[in-house]
Amino acid sequence: MTRFGIIGASGIVGREINKLLVSTHKVPISSIKLFASKQYLHRNIAPNVNNIDKFNIDKLNDIDILFSCVNKTFSKKYIPEILDKYPDIKIIDNSSAFRYDDNVPLVVPEINSNIINKDTRLIANPNCTTAISVLALHPINELFNIKKIIMSTYQSASGAGKAGIDELIKETSNYLEFGKANNQVFQYSLPFNIIPHIDDFHDNKYTNEEMKVVKETKKILNNNNIKISCTAVRIPITRSHSMAITLETEKKIDYELLSNYYKIFTDVIKVEDDIINNKYPMPIITTNKKEIAVGRIRKSLIYDDYGCDMFVCGDQLLRGAALNSVLISKILTDI
Amino acid sequence: MTRFGIIGASGIVGREINKLLVSTHKVPISSIKLFASKQYLHRNIAPNVNNIDKFNIDKLNDIDILFSCVNKTFSKKYIPEILDKYPDIKIIDNSSAFRYDDNVPLVVPEINSNIINKDTRLIANPNCTTAISVLALHPINELFNIKKIIMSTYQSASGAGKAGIDELIKETSNYLEFGKANNQVFQYSLPFNIIPHIDDFHDNKYTNEEMKVVKETKKILNNNNIKISCTAVRIPITRSHSMAITLETEKKIDYELLSNYYKIFTDVIKVEDDIINNKYPMPIITTNKKEIAVGRIRKSLIYDDYGCDMFVCGDQLLRGAALNSVLISKILTDI
Repeated sequence: MTRFGIIGASGIVGREINKLLVSTHKVPISSIKLFASKQYLHRNIAPNVNNIDKFNIDKLNDIDILFSCVNKTFSKKYIPEILDKYPDIKIIDNSSAFRYDDNVPLVVPEINSNIINKDTRLIANPNCTTAISVLALHPINELFNIKKIIMSTYQSASGAGKAGIDELIKETSNYLEFGKANNQVFQYSLPFNIIPHIDDFHDNKYTNEEMKVVKETKKILNNNNIKISCTAVRIPITRSHSMAITLETEKKIDYELLSNYYKIFTDVIKVEDDIINNKYPMPIITTNKKEIAVGRIRKSLIYDDYGCDMFVCGDQLLRGAALNSVLISKILTDI
Repeated sequence: MTRFGIIGASGIVGREINKLLVSTHKVPISSIKLFASKQYLHRNIAPNVNNIDKFNIDKLNDIDILFSCVNKTFSKKYIPEILDKYPDIKIIDNSSAFRYDDNVPLVVPEINSNIINKDTRLIANPNCTTAISVLALHPINELFNIKKIIMSTYQSASGAGKAGIDELIKETSNYLEFGKANNQVFQYSLPFNIIPHIDDFHDNKYTNEEMKVVKETKKILNNNNIKISCTAVRIPITRSHSMAITLETEKKIDYELLSNYYKIFTDVIKVEDDIINNKYPMPIITTNKKEIAVGRIRKSLIYDDYGCDMFVCGDQLLRGAALNSVLISKILTDI
């Protein structure tokens, strides 16, 4: 029986973690303590939840596993303090604060749970785009050794949290009624528009979101030699992120072998690749689903037998964040 | 003074051609004859238009330049007949019927108008996605010789004609009101969804839309050695197509040289690339505009100095179809 804590429990990822803990029974629960900042305490988290509390570092006693679902600044500030103050607590952090720290495992359980050991006290949950795409890439990398990854993303409004969805819905309605949409969450109005800008720009002119994909994919696949490029684009849909991916591999791709290998991962990967019957990954089929969808797999027109193009889609709040975190917590309790 | 004809005048591209001919004065007009199929004759084309007629091959007399804006089947059937029956008529075809015919020029005026001569009687207008992206690619190809192009598209509903826009708007409204959207034009409901399937699938598992980009880009750039891959995706926006593009070049890219070269094309290319001030291409800035937008230009993380990533956006009805056609007509009248 495990005692859980969720900081940022009223946020979009915090809520999903709470729902998953309660509904999936992946880990036997003794208790769940929920924390949020003062201004979000009024949010209706879930029908059965009324014990949400204001975050205070002194209130984290009686917790075995703590999910931190706030942001990088919060994590940088509080996580070292929490680890120090509560020597038995283990933390799964959903921010990017520690993802690139060599001493902190960055984990997608189906790929690299082996890097967690009894002494691991802090685990980073990957960026949601990476958590989805890397699941589709891992089998290809295992079988044929990926050399290059070129990715273009189609990212939903909820990647910017609850405020992102709310703004998209409200402003789409305004656009239809008054012919005009405003914006506060996004850099520009998102209804009937797309924005090739997610998170801040780096000096190399790639966005932080794009560089997260580059750095985290290499770290999770444990291969610094893979060359990766990414263009991350916000699009006007509510939930699920998609990616168009072009790959070059070291070994010749055997599509039957790949198809069989994907079957090992049926809990997490659904191959939706039957073009004769119009079956391919789409946000409407992955939203609220735990499995990512992989499809449009086809021999590369550039790399011929040594590469392929594919399309991947997944619920970034579940598979890309909450579910991945809950699965990490299961490893921590089983170890 | 030129006598024009437009077949498919009530369609989305036919209307734009009519509007451009009347408004831009690119070519002095003597007359414009408009034709549509019977069921579309009632459509309100433009405030000043009341002479639209049912298409009949016997009614095409007194026309110097004819725009055909119907579809491939129509063009395959009627264009050879029209060319035969009216020896002085010149035709600009917006369908894909003759684009891959070695004897038919496929023209983007700013790139390859030189392949049109006095005897040219049929010119193919490229696919709208290609017509936009190739404008951004041509300067790079001229300066640094493109070796590889990897493109992912973000294509608007109006790529499927007026019915596509109408369905998106109506069904978005239905979704917001009733939580459910239907579809007739698209394979699946498009509001708050994306569909990685435009046009039919080929045997190689690429869609016809993707293969149009591959074949037409090579033909317009007059370089069969370029290797091209494409993933074409329909997204829930009304107008303008966008593309995330990754390039490998033969020569080292000099970004200052490129920036200066783009300036030669200011009539057609607007460089929107000032990330400090959040300036980059987006559908809301290119819709109803004649210029395409090019931005997010950055050194490749894969090909280093010999490649770049970029984002391109353009109004596919204007720049990708109607305007390109009207500019071709200007060349035909000037020659």
